[in-house]
Amino acid sequence: MKNKTTNKQDKSHHADNYMPKSSTGGILKNYIVKKSPALSADFLYEGIIRGNITLLSQAITLVESNQKKHKAKASKIVTRCLQHKTSSVRIGITGVPGVGKSTFIEAFGMYLTELGNKVAVLAVDPSSGVRKGSILADKTRMEHLGNNPRAYIRPTAAGSSLGGVANNTRETITLCEAAGFNIILVETVGVGQSETAVHAMVDFFLLLQLPGAGDELQGIKRGITEIADAIVINKADGDLMPKAKLAKVIFNRVLHLYPPKQSDWQPKVLLCSALEKSGIGAVWKMINDFLKITKENGYFDKNRISQNKYWLKETVDEELKTAFYENPEVKKNWPVIADALSKNKITSYEAARQLMQLYEKKS
Amino acid sequence: MKNKTTNKQDKSHHADNYMPKSSTGGILKNYIVKKSPALSADFLYEGIIRGNITLLSQAITLVESNQKKHKAKASKIVTRCLQHKTSSVRIGITGVPGVGKSTFIEAFGMYLTELGNKVAVLAVDPSSGVRKGSILADKTRMEHLGNNPRAYIRPTAAGSSLGGVANNTRETITLCEAAGFNIILVETVGVGQSETAVHAMVDFFLLLQLPGAGDELQGIKRGITEIADAIVINKADGDLMPKAKLAKVIFNRVLHLYPPKQSDWQPKVLLCSALEKSGIGAVWKMINDFLKITKENGYFDKNRISQNKYWLKETVDEELKTAFYENPEVKKNWPVIADALSKNKITSYEAARQLMQLYEKKS
Repeated sequence: MKNKTTNKQDKSHHADNYMPKSSTGGILKNYIVKKSPALSADFLYEGIIRGNITLLSQAITLVESNQKKHKAKASKIVTRCLQHKTSSVRIGITGVPGVGKSTFIEAFGMYLTELGNKVAVLAVDPSSGVRKGSILADKTRMEHLGNNPRAYIRPTAAGSSLGGVANNTRETITLCEAAGFNIILVETVGVGQSETAVHAMVDFFLLLQLPGAGDELQGIKRGITEIADAIVINKADGDLMPKAKLAKVIFNRVLHLYPPKQSDWQPKVLLCSALEKSGIGAVWKMINDFLKITKENGYFDKNRISQNKYWLKETVDEELKTAFYENPEVKKNWPVIADALSKNKITSYEAARQLMQLYEKKS
Repeated sequence: MKNKTTNKQDKSHHADNYMPKSSTGGILKNYIVKKSPALSADFLYEGIIRGNITLLSQAITLVESNQKKHKAKASKIVTRCLQHKTSSVRIGITGVPGVGKSTFIEAFGMYLTELGNKVAVLAVDPSSGVRKGSILADKTRMEHLGNNPRAYIRPTAAGSSLGGVANNTRETITLCEAAGFNIILVETVGVGQSETAVHAMVDFFLLLQLPGAGDELQGIKRGITEIADAIVINKADGDLMPKAKLAKVIFNRVLHLYPPKQSDWQPKVLLCSALEKSGIGAVWKMINDFLKITKENGYFDKNRISQNKYWLKETVDEELKTAFYENPEVKKNWPVIADALSKNKITSYEAARQLMQLYEKKS
């Protein structure tokens, strides 16, 4: 396995400017293969904190692996990276398909790198189902950012559950931060449960919208408007400008109907055109205002800690449920009990009690 | 215990117009005591379906009891009541304190009973903490409804968890329906998690609001506006009328921004004055429109079935979590692990893994 490293893909890895010394003294290039997870956790960690993209990618592959030994190694690396103190901002970006997320991220990412930042683009999209699905397409569309040495675009990870995908993305954020990326953009698709997950792993949550206040504004998931720290109306250019301005007025009104946020931040509505690259600087200025306020009032740090606790509870909850729903007795009896419940023969409470009894007997 | 039934409270029970025959032939009045749960499940069931309010109240007390044998008996009664097919509508009513919930329920309930309906008023308020807290006060304020023979007001049940309280309320709904109450009003307080719970146990969810579109509208919990089937602006009378009309325009606009509901129902905004008893009939007419649409398109029945499944899953989830968080090893180690997490020494995933290991070893 270790020495089969002569395909085209592997060669590109050798172009990386940093190559850590191997502690075993072996021929290093033979180890640097995406499909071989044989590199030690220490080796990968050292590479990551020196900004080696190939090793970062390999570590992320371990994070995303379903194999126990990969997971264990990934956990070691991520834990070490956690100790590597960095200063970063994590920005969630959501919006319905067609709103121009890729174009926005391309323009925004390029703008940020020009200011000297290092930008990582990740995505949470458990609905895609296909490995390296939606965001790989985006990568090809983010032509300039994809070729920008100060940017790192990671294809969407696959996963059987949102919890799993979200956990992988959170560990990937830690790895990217340790690798020196100080701005993390986490994209999500604007439908389903993934926004809540992304909201719970970022510092700032940005909702992209289309101009117009009618049907165009529909289709966004319930509750997203309320959790957004900003609504950025994209495609505010040319003929759409009047509609975009009207949408801004209405969204400002809607946002004022919501109760104040714990962060003391009053959500903003901005216009931009990712295509014409207008309004991009204002978005970054706004995020800096947010950072100033929330770092001063302590919300920024407090929020990150409470996000950690949130994910601890989410992970426990998911593991408990998995154990329950995959219990053979529960699986076998679920249809019968659910059917009795549907027909009002038993109460929900009684159905739960019966299933819990079966579970506790077996587990 | 059984024979200590001579206090004032018990005498009021004897005034009930129905008194079922005791199967044991004992002196019935000695059994009909709120604090004695000695009546058989069959006896209570028979009383309930004949509309006996005292026995209904006793059965609800069993539902709310924390004692296992009471719970078991309650479960028997509720299960039998489930088979007793009835036609009912369950309406959730929420709104911030001060919006006039009690006045509205008094006016609405009186209106409904005058049309020949039997109305039960329940409440979900886990935050009150005190047994018979907020709604008992309301009962004294709902003077007419409280003395109306076609109405039944049940004080808020206490409970250690929202899940527990919600489950009790759902079983209480079943008992009230079996007792002939065809309209169930479930009140909640407009803050915290209780609205989601009430929303998941009713057919129609009504949000009461105050006139005005500025600060007065704030304070309502995030997401409530989106799940409401109707926003009723109360206190639309006198000087507040112009403000109420403006609020109606704005809320209509806000509601149109949300995606269509599964029920195909387009949420409405209505004005009313519970004090002047104006607009009350329109609320009932609207609910009837909703019932017509959702019974025709099948949503009404489908929703009740999916609510049952929702509560089954919620109950299982709560029981799994209780078992975990009350596990002695988990309790003992939680502070240390949570502290390490707060200090970024371990990841959320690693923290969860360690706790799960402790849990699985012990349980």
